[in-house]
Amino acid sequence: MRFELPSSVDILRRTPPTLRALLDGVPDTWARSNEGPETFSPFDVVGHLIDGEETDWIPRARIILGRGSNPTFEPYDRFRHVRRNVGRTLESLLVEFGELRASNLERLGSWSLTDAELDLPGNHPSLGPVTLRQLLSTWVVHDLGHVAQVARVMAKQYRGEVGPWVQFLPVLTDHEVPRS
Amino acid sequence: MRFELPSSVDILRRTPPTLRALLDGVPDTWARSNEGPETFSPFDVVGHLIDGEETDWIPRARIILGRGSNPTFEPYDRFRHVRRNVGRTLESLLVEFGELRASNLERLGSWSLTDAELDLPGNHPSLGPVTLRQLLSTWVVHDLGHVAQVARVMAKQYRGEVGPWVQFLPVLTDHEVPRS
Repeated sequence: MRFELPSSVDILRRTPPTLRALLDGVPDTWARSNEGPETFSPFDVVGHLIDGEETDWIPRARIILGRGSNPTFEPYDRFRHVRRNVGRTLESLLVEFGELRASNLERLGSWSLTDAELDLPGNHPSLGPVTLRQLLSTWVVHDLGHVAQVARVMAKQYRGEVGPWVQFLPVLTDHEVPRS
Repeated sequence: MRFELPSSVDILRRTPPTLRALLDGVPDTWARSNEGPETFSPFDVVGHLIDGEETDWIPRARIILGRGSNPTFEPYDRFRHVRRNVGRTLESLLVEFGELRASNLERLGSWSLTDAELDLPGNHPSLGPVTLRQLLSTWVVHDLGHVAQVARVMAKQYRGEVGPWVQFLPVLTDHEVPRS
């Protein structure tokens, strides 16, 4: 499938309500458990998505659209949320994520991006040259990857409870060493 | 985490609204694309979950609770939905899934299952002896695995659009040969 702006915005708009449906009100045993050391719980994922709203997608798009002589992005801090969200509840993070996302999509829409603008270049600090179109495609895939991660991390909490069914449930065994 | 009935029911109740948030109204290009031959699109996943409501979880729980001399389950048909849902819209399947799930959870609640009942045995046609507790745990994990699958399959539609970011997006590459 080729990148298409309106349907990408539609998918991005779905992530906050999807995460609220999955997570709003679940006990901490479900929300705060992870897949092992250095991995994200559902709570961490929502915090990480908030970091993306504040420091990644729109800030990087602005750098590209600024057409400066050095459109290099700031490096992204994957663990900013750990310090940022001490003492927060999952419910408050879900609300905040929904507000930040709505505001960012409003801004994105206000730009009325053209195909030529979607082809403008940026410079990723470790990946090198990228385009605005690739940045926005990555935003969509990143969201969906983390929705998948939340569901997988929750599923794994019952790994010891399914008995012999484990062999029919690849979600329990396909990420023995999770990468996200 | 140990199996616990009320929070399992809570998770099971979240699956229809989660899938509606992700899928209700998305174009067919997102809803009907899959990961390759013999794999499920989001549309197929919702059909497969409906099959579970009609032929798997509650029917098998009834066999166990019937305490007959031969509590062997019917084999489960993973492709029943393909024939069943010809001509259906995704929206109508999402509504139907929500209704079937609500009705099945009401029935499950009406049984007021005791710990002793959760330990009752059934016989899986290929896995052998299982308990009602394992069946219900599997129901929860099966749901979450398919939510993860829907998000992953959608993410993969933009695999060609993210440029060099592909190496930071494990959802695009962790299931080169999907098992579910």
